[in-house]
Amino acid sequence: MPTLTFLTTCHFDHGALEKLQGSLDRKQISKPLIATDKGIVAAGILDTVRGAMGDDASAIVFDETPGNPTERAVMAAFRMYQDNDCDGVIALGGGSAMDLGKTVALLAGSGGPLAQFDPLKGGNKLVKAMAPVIAIPTTSGTGSEVSLGMVIIMEDGCKLTFGNPKFIPSVAICDPDLTLGLPPLLTAATGMDAITHCIEAFLTPTVNPPADGIGLDGLWRGWRNIAKAVKDGSDKQARWDMMMASTEGAHAFTMGLGAVHAMSHAIGRRQDLRLHHGTLNAVILPAVLRFNEKGCEEKYERLRAAMGLKAGVDLAEAIEALNAEIGMPKGLGEMGVSEDMIADFVPHALADLAHRTNPRVATAEDYEALFKEAM
Amino acid sequence: MPTLTFLTTCHFDHGALEKLQGSLDRKQISKPLIATDKGIVAAGILDTVRGAMGDDASAIVFDETPGNPTERAVMAAFRMYQDNDCDGVIALGGGSAMDLGKTVALLAGSGGPLAQFDPLKGGNKLVKAMAPVIAIPTTSGTGSEVSLGMVIIMEDGCKLTFGNPKFIPSVAICDPDLTLGLPPLLTAATGMDAITHCIEAFLTPTVNPPADGIGLDGLWRGWRNIAKAVKDGSDKQARWDMMMASTEGAHAFTMGLGAVHAMSHAIGRRQDLRLHHGTLNAVILPAVLRFNEKGCEEKYERLRAAMGLKAGVDLAEAIEALNAEIGMPKGLGEMGVSEDMIADFVPHALADLAHRTNPRVATAEDYEALFKEAM
Repeated sequence: MPTLTFLTTCHFDHGALEKLQGSLDRKQISKPLIATDKGIVAAGILDTVRGAMGDDASAIVFDETPGNPTERAVMAAFRMYQDNDCDGVIALGGGSAMDLGKTVALLAGSGGPLAQFDPLKGGNKLVKAMAPVIAIPTTSGTGSEVSLGMVIIMEDGCKLTFGNPKFIPSVAICDPDLTLGLPPLLTAATGMDAITHCIEAFLTPTVNPPADGIGLDGLWRGWRNIAKAVKDGSDKQARWDMMMASTEGAHAFTMGLGAVHAMSHAIGRRQDLRLHHGTLNAVILPAVLRFNEKGCEEKYERLRAAMGLKAGVDLAEAIEALNAEIGMPKGLGEMGVSEDMIADFVPHALADLAHRTNPRVATAEDYEALFKEAM
Repeated sequence: MPTLTFLTTCHFDHGALEKLQGSLDRKQISKPLIATDKGIVAAGILDTVRGAMGDDASAIVFDETPGNPTERAVMAAFRMYQDNDCDGVIALGGGSAMDLGKTVALLAGSGGPLAQFDPLKGGNKLVKAMAPVIAIPTTSGTGSEVSLGMVIIMEDGCKLTFGNPKFIPSVAICDPDLTLGLPPLLTAATGMDAITHCIEAFLTPTVNPPADGIGLDGLWRGWRNIAKAVKDGSDKQARWDMMMASTEGAHAFTMGLGAVHAMSHAIGRRQDLRLHHGTLNAVILPAVLRFNEKGCEEKYERLRAAMGLKAGVDLAEAIEALNAEIGMPKGLGEMGVSEDMIADFVPHALADLAHRTNPRVATAEDYEALFKEAM
């Protein structure tokens, strides 16, 4: 039975960062761990955030989040949290830093080891509590600031998705001004992550019409603004809309995701390749849209309506054209993926949480064909 | 700054009533007041609901809710609540019974008098707490089961809207099967209430894109199903979709409403006329759509897209055609309203909470013209 539960308090606007100290006070966080990465520090965003905290506010900074967060990095941050008697987390950054911060809060509230929380192995029963988390996104893509998930590369090399309503941050502070300095390629790649969330979540068989509506609004907004934000990073309205599309994408994917994410996680877990999650989604999306169309005709019409496309227009081609416009690669081959790797990817795609909510059941052979098509 | 907060737990499906006893247990309600009306009792729905409660569950029934709930009825129910040491409310019925039940819970949690909570007079500062409420709609229109509002006719004859996130029921149980016996005219009138919520909320200047998306999904669903539900009340899928449109309409009107509701409340408060709120909305909607169009062109295009109408189609005419199809009156004149009453309505429309979020500022002269047009 559909049980519709909605999300968390989200302060959303240019300048929303001014809500930080009040949010820390309300959540009774006096010594937060700021989970972030070196790029955020170098861009001066950490300083901006510290400036938004009270003069006498103390904080411990963990800035070693890798490009895709690992269990190892989580454990290092968690030790820092414990050693300094922190009492909450500021998760500051893109999806990687926010997911790492949320995972530290999970360990702080429910103990370890991390692997025990694998939702596919009944791990959600072991989730007792989370330390309070204030999430501040610095990209517009992941939506982790309002999402119930984290994706972590575990010590055994698998990319594991944790998902539980308790993992939704206590407060999200979405300040699009923090993304004004994001370079075009990262704007494009993260933006395509948001757009993929809106599309994939809407196509799942999960019944949650409010989340459908939110996903379609996110797509409406993302589709009209991604190229603007890529071409002119200082376009404040486009930045606002892209951040909203990202937040809405995460509202939507409470319904789950699909084969794009299953495939993207299977490749993204390879630390030798170091590929960007959003870029992978952008490149894989057209193949999966062709695969899923049959049986989803009415939903495809609604996607077209949200995108302002005429009835019957090929969605996969429309995404390919957008990818070309915003500088995304044409295929996985360009990104350093070779066909001999596919055999390694397929079982990971099949084991991924997102695989379970694709509207059309994909077999190992289907995934093999999809990876080839996306090359 | 937009602060996006979302709503409550909503069990939604055919047979959702089975969630009632568990919900009472979780909310630690051992002696609920069931706030309902004689129509619900006569239709056998009260018995169905009692049957879904444990064998040894006790409940006190207040079934004197009038067609539009009054402060007097609220006080009578509240006395019953106190006299019987109740510890929570089951708000069972259409908008009137649910609003009455929610208002009793407000008095139980925050004390009286009721008038002190008028949000236009700073009353929200006095809201301390609510007794727990489990809301069970038996019509698809009001959405009161997930909404933050109640509308009560006060002793002084004014129709007052109370609004506060604390007024959202603790749990909503939406079982479309409870609407299978709703007669065609009431199906049409309540359904038009839901459709009006989706449209008016979307048109407010309030910035809340997730709520926009939810409203458009509700409109998409309501527009395609209202005539089906009116023509064949046993169409379970249409009943499901209409109840969802109703719930989504209320999610959406966290953004506020507009001139349709301001006018509808101004007429609806007249107990000599005894007019149905949804019917009033249906009849008034076309005039307000004509009034609001300028400046809302992009939003009107999105409304048309949700309704599956071609670009540029006149929305007011489309609503008039729907009204005719489902048996709504052609105008207020047919309903017993005469032009000499308009002078009485206008100040009430101007004083209504919904007036403040209409996209175009309406003056007294505008309202006069709008009432005349709706005659």
